[in-house]
Amino acid sequence: MSLAALVRPSSVAVVGASDNTDKIGGRPLYYMKALGYRGRILPINPARQTVQGIPAFASLEALPEAPDCVVVAVPGQAAIDAVEAAARIGAKAAIIIASGFGELGAAGKAEEARMRTLANAAGMRLVGPNSQGLANFGTGAIMSFSTMFIEEPPQDGPVAIVSQSGAMAAAPYGLLRQRGIGVRHVNATGNDCDVTASELATEIVQDEGVRLLLLYLEALDDPAMLARAAALGRERGVPIIAIKSGRSAQGARAAASHTGAIATPDRTVDAFFAKHGIWRADGMADLVRATEMYLQGWRPQGRNVAILSNSGASGVLCADAAERAGLPLATLAPETEATVAAALPTFASPKNPIDVTAALLSDPGLIGKVLPAAGADPDVHMFLLAVPISGRGYDFPGYARDAAAFTAATGKPVVLAAPQRQVRDAFAAVGVPAFQTEDEAIAALSQFARHNEMLARPVAAMVPPRPAAGPAATSSEAASLDLLARFGVPTVARRLCASADEAVRFLGQIGGRIVLKAASAAIPHKSEHGLVHVGLGDPAAVEAAFARIAATVEALGHPFEGALAAEMVRGERELAIGGVMDPVFGPVVMIGDGGIAVEAMPDNALLLPPFTAADVDDALARLRIAPLFQGVRGHPPLDRRAVAAAAQAVAALLMDAAAGVVSVDINPLMVTATGAVAVDGLVETAAGAPAGTGGTETRG
Amino acid sequence: MSLAALVRPSSVAVVGASDNTDKIGGRPLYYMKALGYRGRILPINPARQTVQGIPAFASLEALPEAPDCVVVAVPGQAAIDAVEAAARIGAKAAIIIASGFGELGAAGKAEEARMRTLANAAGMRLVGPNSQGLANFGTGAIMSFSTMFIEEPPQDGPVAIVSQSGAMAAAPYGLLRQRGIGVRHVNATGNDCDVTASELATEIVQDEGVRLLLLYLEALDDPAMLARAAALGRERGVPIIAIKSGRSAQGARAAASHTGAIATPDRTVDAFFAKHGIWRADGMADLVRATEMYLQGWRPQGRNVAILSNSGASGVLCADAAERAGLPLATLAPETEATVAAALPTFASPKNPIDVTAALLSDPGLIGKVLPAAGADPDVHMFLLAVPISGRGYDFPGYARDAAAFTAATGKPVVLAAPQRQVRDAFAAVGVPAFQTEDEAIAALSQFARHNEMLARPVAAMVPPRPAAGPAATSSEAASLDLLARFGVPTVARRLCASADEAVRFLGQIGGRIVLKAASAAIPHKSEHGLVHVGLGDPAAVEAAFARIAATVEALGHPFEGALAAEMVRGERELAIGGVMDPVFGPVVMIGDGGIAVEAMPDNALLLPPFTAADVDDALARLRIAPLFQGVRGHPPLDRRAVAAAAQAVAALLMDAAAGVVSVDINPLMVTATGAVAVDGLVETAAGAPAGTGGTETRG
Repeated sequence: MSLAALVRPSSVAVVGASDNTDKIGGRPLYYMKALGYRGRILPINPARQTVQGIPAFASLEALPEAPDCVVVAVPGQAAIDAVEAAARIGAKAAIIIASGFGELGAAGKAEEARMRTLANAAGMRLVGPNSQGLANFGTGAIMSFSTMFIEEPPQDGPVAIVSQSGAMAAAPYGLLRQRGIGVRHVNATGNDCDVTASELATEIVQDEGVRLLLLYLEALDDPAMLARAAALGRERGVPIIAIKSGRSAQGARAAASHTGAIATPDRTVDAFFAKHGIWRADGMADLVRATEMYLQGWRPQGRNVAILSNSGASGVLCADAAERAGLPLATLAPETEATVAAALPTFASPKNPIDVTAALLSDPGLIGKVLPAAGADPDVHMFLLAVPISGRGYDFPGYARDAAAFTAATGKPVVLAAPQRQVRDAFAAVGVPAFQTEDEAIAALSQFARHNEMLARPVAAMVPPRPAAGPAATSSEAASLDLLARFGVPTVARRLCASADEAVRFLGQIGGRIVLKAASAAIPHKSEHGLVHVGLGDPAAVEAAFARIAATVEALGHPFEGALAAEMVRGERELAIGGVMDPVFGPVVMIGDGGIAVEAMPDNALLLPPFTAADVDDALARLRIAPLFQGVRGHPPLDRRAVAAAAQAVAALLMDAAAGVVSVDINPLMVTATGAVAVDGLVETAAGAPAGTGGTETRG
Repeated sequence: MSLAALVRPSSVAVVGASDNTDKIGGRPLYYMKALGYRGRILPINPARQTVQGIPAFASLEALPEAPDCVVVAVPGQAAIDAVEAAARIGAKAAIIIASGFGELGAAGKAEEARMRTLANAAGMRLVGPNSQGLANFGTGAIMSFSTMFIEEPPQDGPVAIVSQSGAMAAAPYGLLRQRGIGVRHVNATGNDCDVTASELATEIVQDEGVRLLLLYLEALDDPAMLARAAALGRERGVPIIAIKSGRSAQGARAAASHTGAIATPDRTVDAFFAKHGIWRADGMADLVRATEMYLQGWRPQGRNVAILSNSGASGVLCADAAERAGLPLATLAPETEATVAAALPTFASPKNPIDVTAALLSDPGLIGKVLPAAGADPDVHMFLLAVPISGRGYDFPGYARDAAAFTAATGKPVVLAAPQRQVRDAFAAVGVPAFQTEDEAIAALSQFARHNEMLARPVAAMVPPRPAAGPAATSSEAASLDLLARFGVPTVARRLCASADEAVRFLGQIGGRIVLKAASAAIPHKSEHGLVHVGLGDPAAVEAAFARIAATVEALGHPFEGALAAEMVRGERELAIGGVMDPVFGPVVMIGDGGIAVEAMPDNALLLPPFTAADVDDALARLRIAPLFQGVRGHPPLDRRAVAAAAQAVAALLMDAAAGVVSVDINPLMVTATGAVAVDGLVETAAGAPAGTGGTETRG
C-alpha cells in the first residue's frame, strides 16, 4: 500500500467541511482553493449544497467516486464512523484530525488499534488521530489546519518536514519561511496509529523536489522504517536532520546490568542516528540553522576552515569559535601563502585566519582575489567570510558576487558572518548562506561538515531486536567467561576448582600470584562477604583461602560449588565492554573506561552491531581517555586493535540467536600495550540458552 | 585625572577636519551636528574658514580655549605633532584614530610610550592609537568614524560598549539596535597606549544612565583596573559581560611546573572573571543574547525554571534544553499544583512543564491565571513561556500583557519562545524578552541566572602579582614538603636519612612499609634511574635499597646527599593541588584529579586567592570527579574539607612574600574519607627565598 494517496492525492474529501475558514473543517478547503489544488475537492456536509463555494455531498457514501484521501475533521464517535465509512467506500487513506484517542490512555489506544485493523483490512491507510494534517505545497493538497500558513505564506521549495507534533511541524516551517526558504511538505502525523512519521518519511524522501528532510519525533518505535528512510535519502542525496525529543524525560532503564543502565534509550537513539547518517538536532535552532548550506548541495572534502575577514578581531573570534566546535583551521601551504600574500596589501598577513584589513575599502576586488588564491589549497575545505565592517562605502554586493562565483567554480562552501542586515541580505540573495555572528556561522559549518562525514561512511543494515525467549538469568562468572571466550573475547587464565589441591596445581601451572573466589552464582557481592582472595602466591595461602571460602559459603547457607582460581593480571588500564539487547533497536555494544566509576563518572560510547574496527577506533577517539591510546607520560599506547576485537566479539555474541544473550558486562577488560583480557565478566541469557559449561581453562 | 573629558567632553576639537562626511576627519563632525551635540565643536583645518558649516581654526594653537578632547584624525607624524600640540595647549584628552603604531612592532610601541609620557606630563590622557573613537549618544559627543551609526541609526539607551576593536564595538551596537535596544556609549580604544579599555570601563560604569556594560578585550594587561570597574559596577547594579578573545591562540605557557602548564593564561582569565562577577561570553552571540533580561533589572532567587506552553512538544523541548544547560525544572508543591490545576482544563496536567493545551484558544485568560498560580511557588524562580501555536485567532497581545503584569507584580523573570514574528513583537513591546526558539530562550535564562549567582557571591579584592625576585629554582622534595608543611599542608611522614641505619630506624617508628628515594634535587626522573624503591617492609630491604641508591647516585656522577624515607600512604584517590604566580593575575591555585593524566586528561579548576572553603566546594562540584566527594559504589566520600584546607594552605604560601614561591606542584595529594596528605611535592622559589631546611620529620 503506497502512501501516494496521502502525499499526492488526486482527490480529497473533507468530513465536517465548514464555511468558516478558521474552523478545522474549513481551513483545508480554504487553503486548497487559495493555492490552486488541481485535484478534486469533495466537501462532506449533510446540511449544505456547497461549502466555500464548492459543491458538497451529504456523506462519504454519497460521493460519485472513492476519494484518494479523506480528511476526518469531526470529533469523537463521528470520527470513528467516518473512518469506517471511508474504508467501506474504498478510500485509499484517511487523516484523523480529532484528538482524544491514544494520548488519553488504554481505551483510546484500543480504539486506534480497532480503526487501524478495519482500515487496513479494506486496503486503507490511516494518519493520526490527533494529527494537524498533511500539506503538500507542490500540488496544493493542503489537508492541514495549521494557522502558520496564514502567518507565514507558503512557497513551494526543496525542504520537507515530517513531525509527530503539529506545533513542531509549523515551527520549522515558520522559521524557514521567515528566511525566504521554500518548503514543500509540512506533515504532522499525531498519534501514528497506522502510518508512522518514519514510514511517511520513506515516501517523502523519494519526492523528486525534496532535497532536505527535517523530522521531529517524540517516540521512535519503528527504527527499521526510519533506517529505510535514511537509506532511501542517501541514495537520492537527501540528508535527514531529526529532533528526537524527551532526552530529559529519560529515567534510568530498569536494568540488572551496568551496561543496561549506561545504554539509556536516549543514548541508543544517538548511536542509531549516527549509524544511519541522521543528524540529531538538539532543538529547533539546530534543526534549521544550516538549511541553506544543505540546499547548496555542497560536498566538502573535510572540515578544515579558512577564515577571511576585514577585521583581525573578527578573525580571532572565528578561530575561537572553530576551536570550540572542533573545526580545525586549514594550514595553508607555503605556495598558497605566497599567492595569497601577492593578492594582499604588503602589511597584511596571508596566514589563516586571513586579515584582508581595511584595504578592502579601497580594493573592493580583494575578496575575489584572495578566495581563489586560498581556495586552491587542498587543505582548505570550507570558507568563513567575516565582514563586520561594511555598509556605506563598501561594495558588499560585489563581495557577495565574488563569493558566489568562487563557490560555483570550486564547489567549496562559503558562508558569511556579518552583523549588518543589508550585507547579509546581499550575500543570501546570491546563494551564500549568511549568519549574524561568527558563532552561528561556525555552528552551521560544524554541523554541515560532520553530517557530511557521517553520510560518507558506509552503513550496515540494522540488526533487528530479538524478542526475549523468557525471563533472563545471570550465568556464573565461570560460565560467563567461558561463553565470552567461545565468541573470541580473550579471557583470563582460570580454573574452576572443586578442591584446594586443584587450586594449588593451578598456581603451579600459572606461576606468579592467583585470585580465588567462591564460584556460587547465587551469592552476589562476593568481596563484601570475604569470598574473594587476591594475591595468593604460595600453596599454603591458596589452601587457607580455599578453606575459608568453603566455610563462608556454607555459613551463608549455600551449597559450596567450588572456587574459581584465576591468574592475577596487570595492565595499563581497566576498560569496560558490555552489551544489551534493546527491545526496539536490537543489539547495542558499549565500550569505555572501566573501574568503579563506570556509572558515576561515565566515559564510554555505544555502537550498534555490526561495526568495523574503524568504527571502534572512531568511538575510542571520542572518549575522554582517548590520549591513553596514544601513550601518556612514558606509558605505552593501549592496544586499540585488541579492544576493537573484543568489542566485535561481544557484538557477535549478542547477534547469535542460539546464545540468547540479553546483556554482557565485562569490567575490567584489562588492557596493555599488546592485548586485552576480560578479567571479570557476567552474561545474562534468556531462558533456554545455556551460557556454557564451567570448568574449562582458557586463555584467549 | 578623570576620564570625564573623554566620556562627557564640553568641547571637541577635530584635527584633520573634513567636509567629506565619509572621511575619518568628516564623520565625527557630521555625527555631532546631526545628533545635536551641545558642547563646542572645533574643526582644525589650516586651509578652511569653515568645515561642514562650522567655523574652523588653522591649528590647535589658534583655538581661543583649550578643548576638553582632541580627536586626532591625521596620520603618521602629523598625528604625533597634533598630540604634542594638544598637550601644549592644555587639552584634557586626545583620541588618536591613526593606525600604524604599536600594532606594527617595537618602534611603534616606543613612539606610543613617548606620546603617553609627554601627554601625561602635561596632565593629558590618550586613547588609541588605532582607535575607531568614542561615541556618547547621551550627549551627542560622537568622536568616532564608525560606519555602523549610519547603517543602524542610534538611539540613547542603557547599554554601554567598550572594546579594544572598532569592529567589535560596532557589531554589538548593530545587533542591539536591530532589536530596538538603545545604546549610550560605543567606545573603541585601539592600542590602549595610555587609557585602557579597563580604565575607560571604570568611568563608563559610573554613568547614571548605564545599566549594562559589554566589553570586548583582546589583551588584558591591567586586571586590577578591570576588577575596579567590576566593583564599581556591582555597587551600582551594572553587570558586565565580556569577550576576551584569543582562546584558540593560547599556546602552552612555557612552564617548568605542571600547574604552570595547566593554568594557561586563558583559563586564568576565566578564573579572574568568575571571581569578579564578570560573565565571560564566548563570542558575539553570547555577548548580546540576554540583553533584554539584564535591562529588566530582575534579581531571580535561583535558577529553577517553570515552563508553560500550549504545546506539549514545545514543553518537552524546553525541558530538554534546560537539562542540557543545567537549569533545573522547578518542582511544584502539591498546593501549587492544586491551584494550577484549578486554572487549567480538567484534561491538562499541572506538572512542570505545564501544558495549557489548545484550550488557550478558547480561554485567552489562561496564561494570566496559570502564571500567578505557579509563580506563587517559591521553588519557581523564572518562567519560560513557549507559544509555538499562535497567530490568527489567538489573543497573543493579551497573553503578553498578562505576562508583563505578572513579572511587574512579582519580579520573577518571564521570557517567551515563539517562532512567529508577530507574537515575539507583541511580547517585546511590553518588555517580555522574546526568542525564536526554546534553545535560545534557555541559553539566555541560563546565562542570566548564573551571572546573577556570580554577582550575589561576596568578592575578595585582587591579590596583585609579585614581581619575580630573580631566576626560579626548584627545591628538593624534602625541602619542598617542609615548606608546604610549614604553611599547613598535611604532608607524608618522612625523614631525610644520611645513613641506612637512620632509614631502618624510621621504618621501625612508622611500621608498615616505606618508600626510599634519592634526595638529590639535581637528578630529575628519579624512578627512571632506579632511584625510587617502594614497598620496603623489613630492615634488610631498606638497607639494600639505601646501598643501591647511594651507588647509583655516585655512578651518575652526583654527590650522594642521602635518601628521603617516607611512609607508604594509601588513599581513596590521588588528587593534585598546585599553584603559580601569574605575572599579570597574581597567585593562581589549581585543584583537581591527580595521577599520570593530570595534563593529558585534565580535570581541574583554578581559583584566585584569597578564597573560602565554600569557593573550593564550588570548584570541586564542577569537576568530573565530583561524585567521589559524595561516595561512589560503596567507597566513602572523599574529605572535601581536607582538600579545601590544603588548597587554602597553598594559597597562603603563594601569597607570602617572604617565601618567594613562584610555583607549587603537589601530585599526588592522597585523599581519604578523613584527610588528605601531600605525598609528592615540588616548590619553585625565586632567588633569595630559601624554601626551607630539609631533614625535619613532620606529619601535618
